[in-house]
Amino acid sequence: MMPSSALWDGVRCRRMPTTNQRVLLASRPVGAPTEADFKLVDASVADPGPNEILVENSFLSLDPYMRGRMSAAKSYAKPVEIGEVMIGGTVGRIVAVGRDVSRYAVGDVVVGMGNWQRFAVTPATGWMKVDASRIPMSAYLGPLGMPGVTAWYGLMDIGKPKPGETVVVAAASGAVGSVVGQLAKLKGCRVVGIAGGKDKCAYVVDELGFDACLDHRDPDLAKQFAAAVPDGVDIYFENVGGAILDMVLGRLNPFARIPLCGLVSQYNATSAYAVKNFAALLTNRVTLRGFIVSEHLERWPEALVELGDHVATGRIKYRETVTKGLAAAPAAFIGMLTGANFGKAIVAL
Amino acid sequence: MMPSSALWDGVRCRRMPTTNQRVLLASRPVGAPTEADFKLVDASVADPGPNEILVENSFLSLDPYMRGRMSAAKSYAKPVEIGEVMIGGTVGRIVAVGRDVSRYAVGDVVVGMGNWQRFAVTPATGWMKVDASRIPMSAYLGPLGMPGVTAWYGLMDIGKPKPGETVVVAAASGAVGSVVGQLAKLKGCRVVGIAGGKDKCAYVVDELGFDACLDHRDPDLAKQFAAAVPDGVDIYFENVGGAILDMVLGRLNPFARIPLCGLVSQYNATSAYAVKNFAALLTNRVTLRGFIVSEHLERWPEALVELGDHVATGRIKYRETVTKGLAAAPAAFIGMLTGANFGKAIVAL
Repeated sequence: MMPSSALWDGVRCRRMPTTNQRVLLASRPVGAPTEADFKLVDASVADPGPNEILVENSFLSLDPYMRGRMSAAKSYAKPVEIGEVMIGGTVGRIVAVGRDVSRYAVGDVVVGMGNWQRFAVTPATGWMKVDASRIPMSAYLGPLGMPGVTAWYGLMDIGKPKPGETVVVAAASGAVGSVVGQLAKLKGCRVVGIAGGKDKCAYVVDELGFDACLDHRDPDLAKQFAAAVPDGVDIYFENVGGAILDMVLGRLNPFARIPLCGLVSQYNATSAYAVKNFAALLTNRVTLRGFIVSEHLERWPEALVELGDHVATGRIKYRETVTKGLAAAPAAFIGMLTGANFGKAIVAL
Repeated sequence: MMPSSALWDGVRCRRMPTTNQRVLLASRPVGAPTEADFKLVDASVADPGPNEILVENSFLSLDPYMRGRMSAAKSYAKPVEIGEVMIGGTVGRIVAVGRDVSRYAVGDVVVGMGNWQRFAVTPATGWMKVDASRIPMSAYLGPLGMPGVTAWYGLMDIGKPKPGETVVVAAASGAVGSVVGQLAKLKGCRVVGIAGGKDKCAYVVDELGFDACLDHRDPDLAKQFAAAVPDGVDIYFENVGGAILDMVLGRLNPFARIPLCGLVSQYNATSAYAVKNFAALLTNRVTLRGFIVSEHLERWPEALVELGDHVATGRIKYRETVTKGLAAAPAAFIGMLTGANFGKAIVAL
């Protein structure tokens, strides 16, 4: 039902929602977050103003970086303030379009930062229209979203894999790691994953096609790792940090590359793990680069073409853990930080 | 006096020396080396064979990397074996030239790896003929030698300084650090040095023209450092490691670069310093690259043109601590590792 133009001041829409649901940051966690750090509230839905769109979020992505935004500590992005809606990527449909918006139409499927809420009124810039006919909508939060492009950018532009090289991927069954490893296999590399638990390792080897996967909970990990990388490590795609980082640093080859993507083992740590094998970066003349994929938007089009083709044809597989409803998002997020999910953590809204 | 061709089999020479002196590695140090880890011996001088030259070393360079070669631990180069002559860069004159050597003549001044000895019989490849008419011979071990080109390569190719950026240099009065800072000033950067003691700091600021220099022995160092880099750190040229590394990591700007050149504070350490602020490399999207300048020979010609011009015209100043005689080299080397020298440590042979 279209509202009258008098009421909506130039806004085109399909149906105007009346109430919104949002999850706010209630307090800054010390160590691991708890559900008390979040607050589910009802809210009204504002009209999209000029150059704004109203998006009905279908899926919310849960990602480790969100833990950083809950803290006030200096990082690459400003923190979420107490009482603000939690930040997050979403995919959804446009239900209303404000004045002066020409790139989008009501009904378009778009991906962007829609945050932890049912409806998002946001600037039209920063959203990307996607094709949900060939590929499921939620994939745009995974292998074709920030995690997938993160994997692609880090591996291709920093890792620069060559056939025959050995690539090690931590958090190998996760949204980023799974794409890193499959891409590296497609580039002709030997790929060794590290994941939490036998089920995840079996999936990484049997379904995703890694050459090996080691359970980081195994007390015998260091010995298994040495055996799994007989020719040393040329690329270490770093997602986790901590003792695993030190272990891998000890097996680097000369001129190894380390795309430094995340340090998830450290996000809940109240005191930082101190890295013992730092000198390996010198002795092996390593190139290490920290990165955040949203600062390399110029690389997204090329990444999405390549990833889209791999996903549509099944050369890149992915798995999702879908939680139903915004109310369950905090618990799902807390679980993801400790590896309770299996594949991309998503909330269906 | 030319020997007969029957005796010397095609070798051209000025005068053939009869005895050599060499310093051998006697034992592998645990922690700081002692003089007992070295052994001064007399030896005979071999004739240069085909494609070899005989160099009379005039000056031997003492450098921190030599400590690494005394250990059997895995590093970028194979260790010196027990009983082998200690490795080291020298500058000297050619006194004899073997068969099939066309690039060099007796009397040429050359720089290369002549090791801890009076005379070196070595392959003619790997040596470079230099002009000692405009610039003193020993400078080819300092600002125009490995230290100078190390400074140039690390700053230019990894640091990529831009006018107005802040560059921090550890071991600022040393052979590498002093060139890094003066080059960075010539590029329009704010340059903050860190050195050991008030005299070195005064030299770095008053003679070399750094904007500031902090004494790493000062208990107030962290506070002084924060005040010295009000706009944060864009380039950290790393020579030392340890607690200073952690201090600088805590002040990095987004997209900072770290040429990782050395970790001299760690070379004598029996247990590695553990780096606490590793996560700063991620949060600031830092590019860190370990390097050894001998692997970038293709960059030397450009470096030497630029450095030679700066040194000849006095825009790059340098200081040397010259020790007389090979017998005193071990003590001078041991002292250099703890900062007893002031400027480039050199042995006059």
